[in-house]
Amino acid sequence: MTILNLKEYNIYIGPIGTELSRIIEAGNYSHVSLLVDENTHRHCLPFLTKKINVDYSVIEIGAGELHKNLESCRAIWTRMMQLGMDRHALLINLGGGVIGDMGGFCAATFLRGIDFIQIPTTLLSQVDASVGGKLGIDFNSIKNSIGVFRNPKAVFVDPTFLTTLPEGEIRSGFAEVFKHALIADAGLWNDLQAVGDWSSLDWLPVLERSLRIKQQVVEKDPFEKGLRKALNFGHTIGHAVESFSLKTDRPLLHGEAVAIGIVCESWLSNCAGTLPLAELEKITAFVRRLYPPYIFAETNFAEILSYMKKDKKNRGGVINFTFIRTIGQAEVNQTCEEKWIEESMRYYLTSMG
Amino acid sequence: MTILNLKEYNIYIGPIGTELSRIIEAGNYSHVSLLVDENTHRHCLPFLTKKINVDYSVIEIGAGELHKNLESCRAIWTRMMQLGMDRHALLINLGGGVIGDMGGFCAATFLRGIDFIQIPTTLLSQVDASVGGKLGIDFNSIKNSIGVFRNPKAVFVDPTFLTTLPEGEIRSGFAEVFKHALIADAGLWNDLQAVGDWSSLDWLPVLERSLRIKQQVVEKDPFEKGLRKALNFGHTIGHAVESFSLKTDRPLLHGEAVAIGIVCESWLSNCAGTLPLAELEKITAFVRRLYPPYIFAETNFAEILSYMKKDKKNRGGVINFTFIRTIGQAEVNQTCEEKWIEESMRYYLTSMG
Repeated sequence: MTILNLKEYNIYIGPIGTELSRIIEAGNYSHVSLLVDENTHRHCLPFLTKKINVDYSVIEIGAGELHKNLESCRAIWTRMMQLGMDRHALLINLGGGVIGDMGGFCAATFLRGIDFIQIPTTLLSQVDASVGGKLGIDFNSIKNSIGVFRNPKAVFVDPTFLTTLPEGEIRSGFAEVFKHALIADAGLWNDLQAVGDWSSLDWLPVLERSLRIKQQVVEKDPFEKGLRKALNFGHTIGHAVESFSLKTDRPLLHGEAVAIGIVCESWLSNCAGTLPLAELEKITAFVRRLYPPYIFAETNFAEILSYMKKDKKNRGGVINFTFIRTIGQAEVNQTCEEKWIEESMRYYLTSMG
Repeated sequence: MTILNLKEYNIYIGPIGTELSRIIEAGNYSHVSLLVDENTHRHCLPFLTKKINVDYSVIEIGAGELHKNLESCRAIWTRMMQLGMDRHALLINLGGGVIGDMGGFCAATFLRGIDFIQIPTTLLSQVDASVGGKLGIDFNSIKNSIGVFRNPKAVFVDPTFLTTLPEGEIRSGFAEVFKHALIADAGLWNDLQAVGDWSSLDWLPVLERSLRIKQQVVEKDPFEKGLRKALNFGHTIGHAVESFSLKTDRPLLHGEAVAIGIVCESWLSNCAGTLPLAELEKITAFVRRLYPPYIFAETNFAEILSYMKKDKKNRGGVINFTFIRTIGQAEVNQTCEEKWIEESMRYYLTSMG
């Protein structure tokens, strides 16, 4: 068990042991509830049950981004009240990003905030959502548009849960892992070049190094005023491609879209005169090797651009980017003309085709 | 203009001058919106308009506690999006407690939090809601059960707005003023004894002293872990009587109910062996002189008690009280048997009858 000491809480990386029960006992909570979706109820809760030695209630919601909305919050808050949860109750969120973001938001707003523990069960939520205190839901089709920043009591990152995931989910989460390398750790990037077969990968060191990068960035800029925007590398275009894909019959997972965004924004970084061509080509080849190509048409560019214009990172209507100067070094608050954004998508399509 | 320097923001007490525009300009906001209800739109906005020298949009909601709910939040968030408000936008909440609490909550959760300025227009919201960062809405009939703590960018407390209020609203807000005196400032309590005619009262020193008390208490305990509970004096029974009254044809204003709660909880304080009888009688006489009696029946006691049991200040089902040891000194985390709570309501009915 590796413990990452953040300013306000710890991340416990490794198989869940007695720490979880110790923290629950020390909190002397009036009530403990576990938020799950139908998948984590079936695949993850039986495993976790053996690790918790206090009584708890289970709150279940439907699985998937579709349920990350105000109606689900209403159902969760209502259930919390029915269970008699008060200010001294604890909510444990067992699941992927939807459960963590929405369960965290419900806890952070219930009676103006109760304690919550995050147990992310997907690679994406383990490396991305477990640091930074970003909580929230989708609203009016805009992702994460309603939410708050608030830190959990603790986070448990247990690679055991990764064995329950389909390969697509692993690939999706892995985009955040190599994004962390690209913005801040050239050494990790080099080590990741050896990745081939997911099932033989030793996840513990990868999780730990990736989480340390995110920790360093977030603690310097908890409320996303500047440096933290480095984490958005690949996400301006990635989010937009994701939103676009969700309305088609081939929806992308978040990280699959981010991998596309990383290729496009690396091209823009090169175009802006920073990232050397040889490094752009390495990144492109890496994505090509690990991710299936996503085919869309030039006629879709306008719709994808329209999503970028609604991005909450924008200021006064200008689309905000993070570029990389070189592998391992990010530059925040970059802008570029729309025609170059289109050109970057053309580059993606050509190089994957 | 008196400026109260809180840790994270200032409260400007006095007629609104150029400070408001200065703060808005300094914030370099991408968009400014003003949240009003139908009353403040008519009675307060025309006055404020002259003080703001930037373009702004107006968002209007229905007036009254009835509208302090998730549906109104949905409408406000949707409108904020339609107006193109981004992370760098500002929301100004112009109104009483509903506008301040709900508008603040909507701002604190919109894109994970944008700046907001509070301009409370009722006495209650000026002395109570403008310090402490408590934001939220009612949910499932439980008052303020969904919300967050977050501080505004600034608060403007302008007594000019008090001239627009009916006498009942003044009386309601005044309960918080004399509660502040009872828990922390015997000198203020003595000065308030002279209050007779509201219209001749010099509000500035009263507002300032009352706000200073709340500031001192809140800054020592921002998240209501201990000392801040002193502010709940009169509110355990007061809230419950208020909830009860809202379902009858004679609904009480919040402060009217708090005044009843103060009499009951002063009786309990005396009963617990702390507050001297002579002081209890002074408090009772004061409430009797300034507030019309509220008549309810012993058969209503059970319903009123049931509301107390749902209070979010409770822990593990035990009803939590703040008592006063003497005028000017509070004791938090007190409990008492249900029969004494009933007896205290009997005392109120007898002494007002």
